[in-house]
Amino acid sequence: MPKARSTKSTPAPAVRAVRRLSTPELIIKKRDGGELSANDIEQLIEGFTAGEVADYQMTAFAMAALIRGMSPAETVSLTLAMRDSGSVVDLGHIRQAKVDKHSTGGVGDKVSICLAPLVAACGVSVPMVSGRGLGHTGGTLDKLEAIPGFSVSMETAQFVQQVKDLGCALIGQTADIAPADKRLYALRDVSGTVESIPLITASILSKKLAEGIDALVLDVKVGRGAFMKTLRDARLLASSIVRVGRLAKKQVTAFITPMEAPLGKAIGNALETAEAFEILHGRGPDDLRELTLILGAEMLRLGGVAKNESDGKKQLEAAIKNGRGAGRMRQIVRAQGGDARCIDEPDRLPQARHRVPILANKNGFVTAADALDLGLAAVAMGAGRTRADQAVDPRVGIVLDAKPGAAIKRGEPLATLHVNEANVDDSLRKRIASAFEIGARPPRPASLVLDVIRK
Amino acid sequence: MPKARSTKSTPAPAVRAVRRLSTPELIIKKRDGGELSANDIEQLIEGFTAGEVADYQMTAFAMAALIRGMSPAETVSLTLAMRDSGSVVDLGHIRQAKVDKHSTGGVGDKVSICLAPLVAACGVSVPMVSGRGLGHTGGTLDKLEAIPGFSVSMETAQFVQQVKDLGCALIGQTADIAPADKRLYALRDVSGTVESIPLITASILSKKLAEGIDALVLDVKVGRGAFMKTLRDARLLASSIVRVGRLAKKQVTAFITPMEAPLGKAIGNALETAEAFEILHGRGPDDLRELTLILGAEMLRLGGVAKNESDGKKQLEAAIKNGRGAGRMRQIVRAQGGDARCIDEPDRLPQARHRVPILANKNGFVTAADALDLGLAAVAMGAGRTRADQAVDPRVGIVLDAKPGAAIKRGEPLATLHVNEANVDDSLRKRIASAFEIGARPPRPASLVLDVIRK
Repeated sequence: MPKARSTKSTPAPAVRAVRRLSTPELIIKKRDGGELSANDIEQLIEGFTAGEVADYQMTAFAMAALIRGMSPAETVSLTLAMRDSGSVVDLGHIRQAKVDKHSTGGVGDKVSICLAPLVAACGVSVPMVSGRGLGHTGGTLDKLEAIPGFSVSMETAQFVQQVKDLGCALIGQTADIAPADKRLYALRDVSGTVESIPLITASILSKKLAEGIDALVLDVKVGRGAFMKTLRDARLLASSIVRVGRLAKKQVTAFITPMEAPLGKAIGNALETAEAFEILHGRGPDDLRELTLILGAEMLRLGGVAKNESDGKKQLEAAIKNGRGAGRMRQIVRAQGGDARCIDEPDRLPQARHRVPILANKNGFVTAADALDLGLAAVAMGAGRTRADQAVDPRVGIVLDAKPGAAIKRGEPLATLHVNEANVDDSLRKRIASAFEIGARPPRPASLVLDVIRK
Repeated sequence: MPKARSTKSTPAPAVRAVRRLSTPELIIKKRDGGELSANDIEQLIEGFTAGEVADYQMTAFAMAALIRGMSPAETVSLTLAMRDSGSVVDLGHIRQAKVDKHSTGGVGDKVSICLAPLVAACGVSVPMVSGRGLGHTGGTLDKLEAIPGFSVSMETAQFVQQVKDLGCALIGQTADIAPADKRLYALRDVSGTVESIPLITASILSKKLAEGIDALVLDVKVGRGAFMKTLRDARLLASSIVRVGRLAKKQVTAFITPMEAPLGKAIGNALETAEAFEILHGRGPDDLRELTLILGAEMLRLGGVAKNESDGKKQLEAAIKNGRGAGRMRQIVRAQGGDARCIDEPDRLPQARHRVPILANKNGFVTAADALDLGLAAVAMGAGRTRADQAVDPRVGIVLDAKPGAAIKRGEPLATLHVNEANVDDSLRKRIASAFEIGARPPRPASLVLDVIRK
């Protein structure tokens, strides 16, 4: 096929060699399978940020990039251009290493809330910029906002000061941080251009690099309740982010972890925050504690504070035992305007009015608790959102009384719904009951980590 | 890769089977190589027309369709959906056959202006909706507007009445005719999604079907000065339009004709209109007259007025000789507010102030006159536009004094520039001179028609 009209009416070749490509020409270059230069990509993203490249041009580009793919060099260029579309937080004057953790999203994943204060208590700073829940997955910001008074928005200067003072701040993406990514993500979400490993890579890393971090620990969830459905896709994304992070001169370790069943027992914002606090007190579900220790140990290792995984875990366990993790969280919550008493008195978190058990209809072992179905049920109950502009109810949710592997008897509770109306719709009951599978034999215990990618 | 979030948070399969896909889901279906149903495409185009499908969704769809392709069935659905985005002119009460001609665009292509009145004079109605020039190609509307007073816009009722009374009206696309195509085309032009045979097919045919025609003669230009650069691409487009036209129950004949050199001798709006009038008077360039007769004869044949090509040509030649073609054009021009005296007194058309010859620098035969280079030079002189919102100067242009095949001597004119400033820029002179090639031997005579596709 010939090139577009705009391509044809170009001046003589001598001039063409040095001139900037027009936006349609940039799109066509990618559309036809070419590799864009760093200059090309900077021009596109700068134009998009400045409003000169229209939304309808950006989605055409995103579709071409999704179908044709992008090279690692292109992905780095896109990442850096989106990072530089806003301001990059300067944390250079903070002596401690700055390490963040990012999860690709799952159900019941409240790791950040217990992980960040524990890692900060061990001497690695955590400048954490989190997101909100969308679809069946929850978001750290929604969970934190369940704490009365807690604010996730602050000015950059305040963010820097809190990271300096407390080794941690827990905020949402400001207008300043990678605004091109924010706008592009919103467009991708409605234009069928989400599922691109290079675009996802650039979206995640541009924000994280704008935080001023030295290193990143990535938790790529895989399975029914995750964005990545297969181990192969999860490995592709993990490898892409590790590689592009390295090209951008940042250490990145990616853990691939299962998301077939929810992590921990609680789904729903206040319920999950309370469960994360349990971890700080040395209690809470084993899988949640263990994953927190694994990810946190790697953060300490990357931050130069721990020699190896086992050393890192010991330090984190000590910070649980001696209460320094909980203490640090009290300081963070207080600094961000929240009621820090919630950490020790979880009843101060918003509570749903009623608890409704969902009972097993036979004896056996729980062999599955479908994270996607349970996540969607929680959304339907009001705990999540299907559109970005919806509000969530912090009180409602689901607590799993029996996780996969547990023995169960007919009539015992599989889960407890936290609801505001005592009359729970029959279809919701059925939906939640059918998310559980009960078999004659216990399932093979699931690994907490399926793979680790460091290079 | 997994599906988008919007796909994941769908209800149970039983419900999914009957519900309409969301816009992102429609885009993803095409993105992943699926075939959209007629319902899918209607929903998309209806949503686009109603403003519910955003521009940035439409360009993502167009990019997916361009890269993944569209089946003939999808292309028919798109064509009909875009036709039905506005009103379809009802010419059913006009007894004569209604046949239009469409050219994919070239340089010096003023065929419509002499063809339409000749065909109308022979008893086939020509409800002709034309376009404007863009890039190096000219447009019939710009050429017609060179006639003082001539208006190319009219209400649908007036259009119908004029086709009934005079057998021909020459207008531009109204807001009523295929508005979805109009908007989509503007978006494709700036989003790198022009070069798609299915999208081009639907764009051309949706407008033509909305005119209420019975049959269509298509002139697919191929070569340096055309949109299609290779015979293969031209055949693909011609076959696509003929096939989709047939599926939409219209007879379509596609001629593939060369566009290496300009058609006729004149490039520029008033100059071309004058040249088309020459044909009506039995004069003018041979290639222009012959192509007009070939395309017109097929229109008469499709309209049931001529038995075959040779019969059709004879009727058209008679309409030239007995002056009925010119007479019909006088009526049309008068009906549309124009100064009909221009047809017989071409000096009444707008004239540039100066004529500047471009001279040959050696003896020999003209072997090439590059249509693209000459078209771009004419645009640079003000005869055309590089953006849709630019005005054109009807007076300026280029007249070829020597077409390919002509013997030439050093110092004789290759072309004459019609300009308003006597001092012509040296670079423009060089540009036009270098569009001509002079060789020792005459070139092989070019065919006027490279292929005809009827099924």
